Amino acid sequence: MTDITLAIVGATGLVGKEILAILEERKFPVKNLVLLASKRSTDTVLSFNGSSIKVKELTQDSFQNVDIALFSAGSSISEKFAPIAAKSGTVVVDNTSFFRMDPSVPLVVPEVNKHALKHHNGIIANPNCSTAQLVMALKPIHDYAPIKRLVISTYQSVSGAGKEAMMELENHSRYLIQGKVADPKEFSHHMPFNLIPQIDVFEDNAYTKEEMKMINETQKILETEIPITATAVRVPVFVSHSEAVNIQTDKPVSVEKCRELLTNFPGVTVLDNIQEQEYPTPRDVSGKDDVYVGRIREDISQKNTLECWIVADNLRKGAALNAVQIAEELIKLPVNVA
Amino acid sequence: MTDITLAIVGATGLVGKEILAILEERKFPVKNLVLLASKRSTDTVLSFNGSSIKVKELTQDSFQNVDIALFSAGSSISEKFAPIAAKSGTVVVDNTSFFRMDPSVPLVVPEVNKHALKHHNGIIANPNCSTAQLVMALKPIHDYAPIKRLVISTYQSVSGAGKEAMMELENHSRYLIQGKVADPKEFSHHMPFNLIPQIDVFEDNAYTKEEMKMINETQKILETEIPITATAVRVPVFVSHSEAVNIQTDKPVSVEKCRELLTNFPGVTVLDNIQEQEYPTPRDVSGKDDVYVGRIREDISQKNTLECWIVADNLRKGAALNAVQIAEELIKLPVNVA
Repeated sequence: MTDITLAIVGATGLVGKEILAILEERKFPVKNLVLLASKRSTDTVLSFNGSSIKVKELTQDSFQNVDIALFSAGSSISEKFAPIAAKSGTVVVDNTSFFRMDPSVPLVVPEVNKHALKHHNGIIANPNCSTAQLVMALKPIHDYAPIKRLVISTYQSVSGAGKEAMMELENHSRYLIQGKVADPKEFSHHMPFNLIPQIDVFEDNAYTKEEMKMINETQKILETEIPITATAVRVPVFVSHSEAVNIQTDKPVSVEKCRELLTNFPGVTVLDNIQEQEYPTPRDVSGKDDVYVGRIREDISQKNTLECWIVADNLRKGAALNAVQIAEELIKLPVNVA
Repeated sequence: MTDITLAIVGATGLVGKEILAILEERKFPVKNLVLLASKRSTDTVLSFNGSSIKVKELTQDSFQNVDIALFSAGSSISEKFAPIAAKSGTVVVDNTSFFRMDPSVPLVVPEVNKHALKHHNGIIANPNCSTAQLVMALKPIHDYAPIKRLVISTYQSVSGAGKEAMMELENHSRYLIQGKVADPKEFSHHMPFNLIPQIDVFEDNAYTKEEMKMINETQKILETEIPITATAVRVPVFVSHSEAVNIQTDKPVSVEKCRELLTNFPGVTVLDNIQEQEYPTPRDVSGKDDVYVGRIREDISQKNTLECWIVADNLRKGAALNAVQIAEELIKLPVNVA
């Protein structure tokens, strides 16, 4: 199927704009592009493939004749409008957490589990940014040596919290260097030159919702009950999330084997040459499509366990790129999109 | 013993200046203070208890009549001058890594293992900053329920790399905000708004020296062979190191019990009220003496395992404070200092 009518809900947001750029880069076969946002953004004009497109207000009638809609406007918008879109025959790729754990909604990273797409009912969920990059690195290892347990610490950039959060990090960093201090608005604590060991709200088990998303979504995508623990920390980095991951497997995986498995997996790049001090950093990975893995080593504390450092652009593979990749898979399906 | 003649080797460095401040704060019984540094710093005058003291050049003759010398001038200086000082009857408290794993040298965090001080031969080692705060939080847990394995991810501030590194983070952050970029000098990669998953050089097992220091020193101080793995990451924070630590014990430790054990341990503060978004951040902990622990929760992936978040001022408990505390213990000993 080609000549798609595609809608972007939340077109003026960080992820919405990244989706536009990626659709252009990948020459996605868009015939009509419908840009949707809240009323206050409806004067915005965005550029796509050389044309200027005016952003329209999202309403219940926005989805007539729309084949695919990519939603990135927050959970409450998805909760309300994704079912409306699906009902009108649009296939929704939803970037929010709202439908991810719904058993009737496939949660998809195409390189990992595109087979799950076949069973969609009009809504497909895009995983949390920190999950997407994690499962990309885990999948080839898990297929070779089933994973027994994961211990994860994240180092997540502020772009995961949106445009205003990025602006606050920039502005408040400038103030601090000038000897001034401004109260945080977008964060629970000061973000410049600081760390915040909380992303999203706390759940009853004292994990944050962000930590539980990583845990639950990873299990759903890998179709396993692997025990996972995670600590999610916001760091003063603009773009790209990093993860220190301890991976226990049920049989030995040598460092060489792990490198080979990862290198052969589409969308993963191994950058692991410690003699030359080469390993992924968020600055270097920003703007790239691949998930980068470095610092691969055998855990000296436990048999059959690997340590690694996984970095990816959270706006690309963690959000916009993965959504567009799902749309690319959808248009290859024979019946679901029509 | 009172009226000590005390020398600070590396008096003009970050840790040296912090030692001066802490000696004043704690009213350490200094009769004569000898400030030593390399020749290029010998014009510097530093203030102590209202007097101005000129920094002298460190030479082989610097230690005559010095009771205690606190060394913070790098491993090669300690390697050369600590034995000279010890030979002349001075007790050395060494902040560098040079002697830490020497079996004849006690490696001491006073709250944890001050008993080890009794067996010194003129040189006592101060642990690595990331180790000191770690063992403070682990000791009360380990005494109650022996630890079986640790998985650690660190988030370490640039002050651990010295004054120039702090200046580079500040200056290069300003440049970046102004749209300019300067090549890193103090770091292997750009530090502003970035992460560097390497501290110190790599060892043969692909761990960094910093990671192996944490592992080996923690085992030495806790007098155990606990299996430990660690990933050490430099973050764009000026002061205070943070650690996400996964602690497996050989019997259950409830969150309440863990809080009680930590609260009752001297030098540890539990800051763990997630309903109010209270947990330690490096910014809030900078300038404080205590080791702060928050995000305490039962690991949902494994029995008898806790997760926690440990933050301390790396220049204080991680370096200067611990060195002064060792000196305080030394002057209580009956014979070793004379």
